[in-house]
Amino acid sequence: MRMASQELQKLLMPIDEDLIFKSGNPDDLRLGDLITPIADVELGNATAVVILGIPQHIGVERNNGRPGAAGGPTEIRRALYKMATHSISPTMQAGKLMIIDAGNLDIAGKTLEQIHDEQHDVVAGLLRKKIFPIILGGGHDIAWPTMRALETLGEKYGVINIDAHADIRPLQDGKRAHSGSAFRQLLDVEHSHISAGGLVEFGLQEFSASKEHTSAIKAAGMHVMMLDEIRMEGIAFAWQEALGHATTSANTYISLDMDAFASAFAPGVSAPAADGFAPWEIAQCIRTAARNPALKIFDVAEMNPEYDVDGRTAKLAATMIMHVLSGIAERIKD
Amino acid sequence: MRMASQELQKLLMPIDEDLIFKSGNPDDLRLGDLITPIADVELGNATAVVILGIPQHIGVERNNGRPGAAGGPTEIRRALYKMATHSISPTMQAGKLMIIDAGNLDIAGKTLEQIHDEQHDVVAGLLRKKIFPIILGGGHDIAWPTMRALETLGEKYGVINIDAHADIRPLQDGKRAHSGSAFRQLLDVEHSHISAGGLVEFGLQEFSASKEHTSAIKAAGMHVMMLDEIRMEGIAFAWQEALGHATTSANTYISLDMDAFASAFAPGVSAPAADGFAPWEIAQCIRTAARNPALKIFDVAEMNPEYDVDGRTAKLAATMIMHVLSGIAERIKD
Amino acid sequence: MRMASQELQKLLMPIDEDLIFKSGNPDDLRLGDLITPIADVELGNATAVVILGIPQHIGVERNNGRPGAAGGPTEIRRALYKMATHSISPTMQAGKLMIIDAGNLDIAGKTLEQIHDEQHDVVAGLLRKKIFPIILGGGHDIAWPTMRALETLGEKYGVINIDAHADIRPLQDGKRAHSGSAFRQLLDVEHSHISAGGLVEFGLQEFSASKEHTSAIKAAGMHVMMLDEIRMEGIAFAWQEALGHATTSANTYISLDMDAFASAFAPGVSAPAADGFAPWEIAQCIRTAARNPALKIFDVAEMNPEYDVDGRTAKLAATMIMHVLSGIAERIKD
Repeated sequence: MRMASQELQKLLMPIDEDLIFKSGNPDDLRLGDLITPIADVELGNATAVVILGIPQHIGVERNNGRPGAAGGPTEIRRALYKMATHSISPTMQAGKLMIIDAGNLDIAGKTLEQIHDEQHDVVAGLLRKKIFPIILGGGHDIAWPTMRALETLGEKYGVINIDAHADIRPLQDGKRAHSGSAFRQLLDVEHSHISAGGLVEFGLQEFSASKEHTSAIKAAGMHVMMLDEIRMEGIAFAWQEALGHATTSANTYISLDMDAFASAFAPGVSAPAADGFAPWEIAQCIRTAARNPALKIFDVAEMNPEYDVDGRTAKLAATMIMHVLSGIAERIKD
Repeated sequence: MRMASQELQKLLMPIDEDLIFKSGNPDDLRLGDLITPIADVELGNATAVVILGIPQHIGVERNNGRPGAAGGPTEIRRALYKMATHSISPTMQAGKLMIIDAGNLDIAGKTLEQIHDEQHDVVAGLLRKKIFPIILGGGHDIAWPTMRALETLGEKYGVINIDAHADIRPLQDGKRAHSGSAFRQLLDVEHSHISAGGLVEFGLQEFSASKEHTSAIKAAGMHVMMLDEIRMEGIAFAWQEALGHATTSANTYISLDMDAFASAFAPGVSAPAADGFAPWEIAQCIRTAARNPALKIFDVAEMNPEYDVDGRTAKLAATMIMHVLSGIAERIKD
Repeated sequence: MRMASQELQKLLMPIDEDLIFKSGNPDDLRLGDLITPIADVELGNATAVVILGIPQHIGVERNNGRPGAAGGPTEIRRALYKMATHSISPTMQAGKLMIIDAGNLDIAGKTLEQIHDEQHDVVAGLLRKKIFPIILGGGHDIAWPTMRALETLGEKYGVINIDAHADIRPLQDGKRAHSGSAFRQLLDVEHSHISAGGLVEFGLQEFSASKEHTSAIKAAGMHVMMLDEIRMEGIAFAWQEALGHATTSANTYISLDMDAFASAFAPGVSAPAADGFAPWEIAQCIRTAARNPALKIFDVAEMNPEYDVDGRTAKLAATMIMHVLSGIAERIKD
């Protein structure tokens, strides 16, 4: 089975090979050593994960945010491919798990609307082939074409957005999407396939998200879990509750906006917050979720290298992706 | 009722209007949208909070510290007025809570002693009118004129200083106050109105505060809660103990030195410490305290923009102020 | 008794006196006020601690790491000698505890092998005289000559390495040590005096240490405690377990690689990790260990001023050393 049709592959741009770190040492394999180039993938019976970059921040600029997230895919990859593969390399070496870097969506000369359409087409194509997409933003508007692909798939699904912000601002002029509108676009879908109560906004901050916005989410029958409430309840319990809402079907999508972390840990984001999650909190959440076969898509948004400090945020994003990959490997072994 | 006499208003300087962010969007109100300018305040029956800046670091320089805290009020306001008002906007819109920016104390050409006298006069004036002052430092010497205003008020009071340092160094030449002397000045008051045991130094660090200094506080019948002890006990219990000491009367003052936080979270301070509180720890403490009508004054000291990283510390200070405002709003609703 | 033979003293270089901060204030003593210069030390019956710097990063460069750790001893001292001595000054003033700065090993014009030989000689000399060495790296290859000195001592010993990495890479060309090889060198010792299971690698990170490396440690009968496992178990319990393994004899050595901390807290290291320990976690561990007379050596490695942010990492290293010194003082009092 080919990973993607030639038509879809035309939408993609290969990345600079220098980003794919190679240790060349069998005793110390790094993810870059085990990545499969997209050119001649034959999936066989392997579980397949595709890494796909969306190198644009057009939606951030529309939302009056600070540009820079277009550089996210490059810097995340630079960190990601140096990571030790610890528990996933045996599964990969046994041919049961393939991780493929599909490169970046080719955005040159395109409007945000065209980019979203093409992201939708690629993600829907991957989902149809039962391939797990890991999408590297870019602005958080990347969440919308992914959810639209889930709608196209036509099966019930659930979504957890880990974020300081609700991202349910209306479209501009009623039609222009931006980095703060993805979940508004979801709520506006008529006859959506999302499960009843299947959207969970996890970690929203009281001083970053308005009451009107959180009320609108609840009015739509969806769930808001505020950062302070999560802490009161304890994050392990709160996360189980979130998973309970979003994992009633076989299709769950987790979107991680890097500004959900306290800015000490994630300085390189478009809109930093002084308070927020610590790395160890989200690591455990994501790992738990990734072990469940219901998790079908993961993305990381708003990583902004312009404001990063010595690659700290890129490494944090890469660490979270490694937890997803490890969770997927653990599914296969179990 | 006028907020303050014309005489007191002469001591103040209005701030640059650009600092007061306005979203203009009723679905996404920010604190800047709801602030009342001081010019023509009529308090009516509303609970009133006044934001007052003290833009000087003369006391820091006297204490051989790093200058920069004079810029604190500006950078804290820049962050503060962009904050989402979540749970406080209904109370403000119902006219039950007013938040007034009184500008900065006009310090031009004045000695630290004159500035302290004028801060005392303004704070005492506010307290007499039952207005809640939130004071933006500036060096931590701002705590002394505030406590002197409590003495002038003549009612019993308690104080919690959240700080890595004890700030009980003696005056220089027996008369010159500085950023490390405020609580020494309090202990030296004859016939003070502070409650027995009503001063709690919370979060002092073993390697920042000498034994001689902590012993002097205890010898005065006051309380020292070291950072490591707080952690052993658990911060929730420790904070209840601190509140128990400082809230025996109807007047409690909490002073937050930003260097109480680990410098990862608060790099922009005069004297950073590698270890210290995390934002979430102090957020819960301050919110709990602010819900209690006994809390009458709050300040933030030693925020130093010269050493800040992308506004992180200014945002943290603003977040803590938002917890105070939210706690006050919750008092009114209850 | 002389602290060290004249022969050993020839290997050392005195440090710049400006690094030894003096408050000169008996009510606010700082460590710099209480340090004994090495020149004319008479130990008497005092417990003695010697601070020794190893200002080189040759092994880091061999391991393809980022240079800069050669500046660690200077910046750690700059922070260390400003620390308040809180609970240790009475013990020092009573003449029961001496802290001596022995300066730096003179590395000028020497190969890493020569430097290691000389570090071995100095550390073995100190151990023979029952002096507690606190060694300031430099790259983490400093751990090997220290362990070689323990071998020379010829008594049973245990080791805890607090680190994100396993540091058991093979020597280059079978003979050149580097900053990632110290524990491999230990495992390769024939007839080693290390206790059965006496090496604990504490805090290794799944995405920094390969499975082959952690398996090799376990195959040698030693212990690996991964960061995520420590969190699951709770660090207090995990640390007791680690101490149990490493403290079966009267000689324990703890090595702290600063990259064990999340890079928000320790940005100034050769190889930062986004996730990792918080300062308060390791503070408690180290303090507990230092109270036990079995702890005989402590070092801090990989502090790299080139990447530090306003001295944050140097202060963190200094804070950890202060916990060791405080724990030693508490031994004496007990």
